Amino acid sequence: GNAILSGYGTTIFEVMSRLADEHGAINLGQGFPDERGPADVLDVAANALLTGWNQYPSMMGTPDLRQALANHAKRFYDLEVDWKTETMVTSGATEALTACLLGLINPGDEVVLFQPMYDSYLPIVRLAGGVPRFVSLKAPDWSFTRADLEAAFSPRTKLVLINDPLNPAAKVFSRPELELIAEFVQRFDTLAVCDEVYEHLVFDGRRHIPLMTLPGMRDRCLKIGSAGKTFSLTGWKVGYVTAAPHLLQPVAKAHQFLTFTTPPNLQTAVAFGLNKDDAYFADLAGGLQAKRDRLAAGLTAVGFEVQPSAGTYFVVADIGRFGFDGDDQAFCRWLTAEAGVTAIPVSAFFVENAPTTCVRFCFSKKNEILDTAIERLSKRF
Amino acid sequence: GNAILSGYGTTIFEVMSRLADEHGAINLGQGFPDERGPADVLDVAANALLTGWNQYPSMMGTPDLRQALANHAKRFYDLEVDWKTETMVTSGATEALTACLLGLINPGDEVVLFQPMYDSYLPIVRLAGGVPRFVSLKAPDWSFTRADLEAAFSPRTKLVLINDPLNPAAKVFSRPELELIAEFVQRFDTLAVCDEVYEHLVFDGRRHIPLMTLPGMRDRCLKIGSAGKTFSLTGWKVGYVTAAPHLLQPVAKAHQFLTFTTPPNLQTAVAFGLNKDDAYFADLAGGLQAKRDRLAAGLTAVGFEVQPSAGTYFVVADIGRFGFDGDDQAFCRWLTAEAGVTAIPVSAFFVENAPTTCVRFCFSKKNEILDTAIERLSKRF
Ligand SMILES: CSCCC(=O)C(=O)O
Ligand SMILES: CSCCC(=O)C(=O)O
Repeated sequence: GNAILSGYGTTIFEVMSRLADEHGAINLGQGFPDERGPADVLDVAANALLTGWNQYPSMMGTPDLRQALANHAKRFYDLEVDWKTETMVTSGATEALTACLLGLINPGDEVVLFQPMYDSYLPIVRLAGGVPRFVSLKAPDWSFTRADLEAAFSPRTKLVLINDPLNPAAKVFSRPELELIAEFVQRFDTLAVCDEVYEHLVFDGRRHIPLMTLPGMRDRCLKIGSAGKTFSLTGWKVGYVTAAPHLLQPVAKAHQFLTFTTPPNLQTAVAFGLNKDDAYFADLAGGLQAKRDRLAAGLTAVGFEVQPSAGTYFVVADIGRFGFDGDDQAFCRWLTAEAGVTAIPVSAFFVENAPTTCVRFCFSKKNEILDTAIERLSKRF
Repeated sequence: GNAILSGYGTTIFEVMSRLADEHGAINLGQGFPDERGPADVLDVAANALLTGWNQYPSMMGTPDLRQALANHAKRFYDLEVDWKTETMVTSGATEALTACLLGLINPGDEVVLFQPMYDSYLPIVRLAGGVPRFVSLKAPDWSFTRADLEAAFSPRTKLVLINDPLNPAAKVFSRPELELIAEFVQRFDTLAVCDEVYEHLVFDGRRHIPLMTLPGMRDRCLKIGSAGKTFSLTGWKVGYVTAAPHLLQPVAKAHQFLTFTTPPNLQTAVAFGLNKDDAYFADLAGGLQAKRDRLAAGLTAVGFEVQPSAGTYFVVADIGRFGFDGDDQAFCRWLTAEAGVTAIPVSAFFVENAPTTCVRFCFSKKNEILDTAIERLSKRF
């Protein structure tokens, strides 16, 4: 097999979900909600499936979804987007990311990555021949400094990949932080691939700020979004990229040979979803915020040291006080087998200098599931 | 952008479909049927969507579909397949192909490709760092010789990629031809990626023979199939790979970062489809065979020299007698704009020594569409 890809294990999310199944554990590992998704969006999808077009749509996506993406960008971020030249639909945000990296990177190009990072980033950067340069965010607030960026950017930087809101850290980048990144992107005349799949899962009245909206950044950013996260339908695998035409074109060159296109009925339903009223989006964030509070309170009561969560599906908890010799992976296996609750070791999001006492819990679950998880944990701690 | 991918244009199928749209032409270019697909399969999909799981399934696919794949292999090809270790579901056969190539090839590996070839093969082989070695099939019967294989295989051959039934040539490889390929694959201790998306679209009572079923080939082949083609639902983007565990594992390493997984309701519906009775599969091939005959007769009547079609959605016609200076691309543009019928230039499937007087017509369309296309052509020829 390919030496680079074979060097990586099976994605931690799949590994822990399988382990959860084997042990009948409550799966607070892999990030997905356990609900049905919005009934009206499901109805549109079923209706389109039964009465609409089931053959190849355009490789760029269906016009209805692409128009909805442009409207969404205007409504939430005051961004003017030309749907015909600046939007593309992909088979999930994972495909969007891979299309961006394979479509933009040439062998030898440097790529700035923030640790912790989603586990597909590094293998694909390396497969593309990119040379990773890491910025390590410092727990507990996952901060970084100007000096960190000075050390990572260079004239060979092709792009920076930024995940905001940040999985697993549940950090939402502040405007000053984004401004600092924007300054470096412009100073080095480079690009930003912005994985913003959790853009609508931001809590406590904060708003997500796309890097693309900062001065000078409109035509330097490729913004990736996810219908799975925005509509609690992670299995649908509908993602999207918004970018200036000269950036989107090379990405489309990769996309056409990765999946070519995405089921049209799902695209139509996502278009409908993106046009839903503000209450939908507020309720989505509000509902998750309540779940965050519920799980965080429970974990705290049981004795975990819970870090703040400003967005995403996740809270990170420190397990240092429980022993396990700083082996978060061993802790997560033990927790699954012995407590019947599955979490994700945060070290899986690092290549170097990984914290070893952090685990990630997913709170996008029914209240009774969260409560049962806490009950199970309370028997062990 | 990436220098390799940027060197290729937008896929010819998208280009010609857009041109057809612009001119209001009948689109006999891109290969897709214009029907709704089997009503019972659609019902299962809609029902699963409305009542089933819409979150991430396992990255390898849903158990129901993977079991159906194993049953299908037994029923049609007498192949014993362990669904748990030898099947994987992908977001279309395009993704399956790309996962196979990226997952298996290391830079410098040689890859044997048969021309004509589907247009994603070469860019992805080259993106993976593979070195292509071409076998050029000779029109009109698209044959090859032992000497052709001797020239293409070497100790550096990592794999051969074979598309059978062959798009655009509409050729179905004979057992002696497959035996010759199998001999070389074994002699050079190499692998075969078998793009068999048209496995059920074979005419005149012939049966498709998977290369995997030949002696010594069971554990050297990765067999790719397509629900889009088998159920006339090309927009669903459900594909699959069947291969021995040691071959499938590296491919899964690529798949997990290309799309990770595929919508579960569509997988469940495809599982249902694969379990349909023999009459379904016979009717599929029989119906297409009748359409092949209808279009071929019409093209012949109009003056095209039509080549035989043993399988796929396609017939190739020679246009040499119509002039156009051996420029099949110019002919296809002219045909779209002036005759209102779109075809695909066969030279798009070649990198070298392309025939220049062949165009491909897709016959998987309603009879009245085929008839109108012939009527339009008869006004021009
Ligand atoms: C490929 S499963 C991904 C789920 C997820 O985004 C996460 O758990 O971090
Ligand atoms: C990516 S569209 C593919 C359609 C097809 O297989 C063909 O027309 O050859």
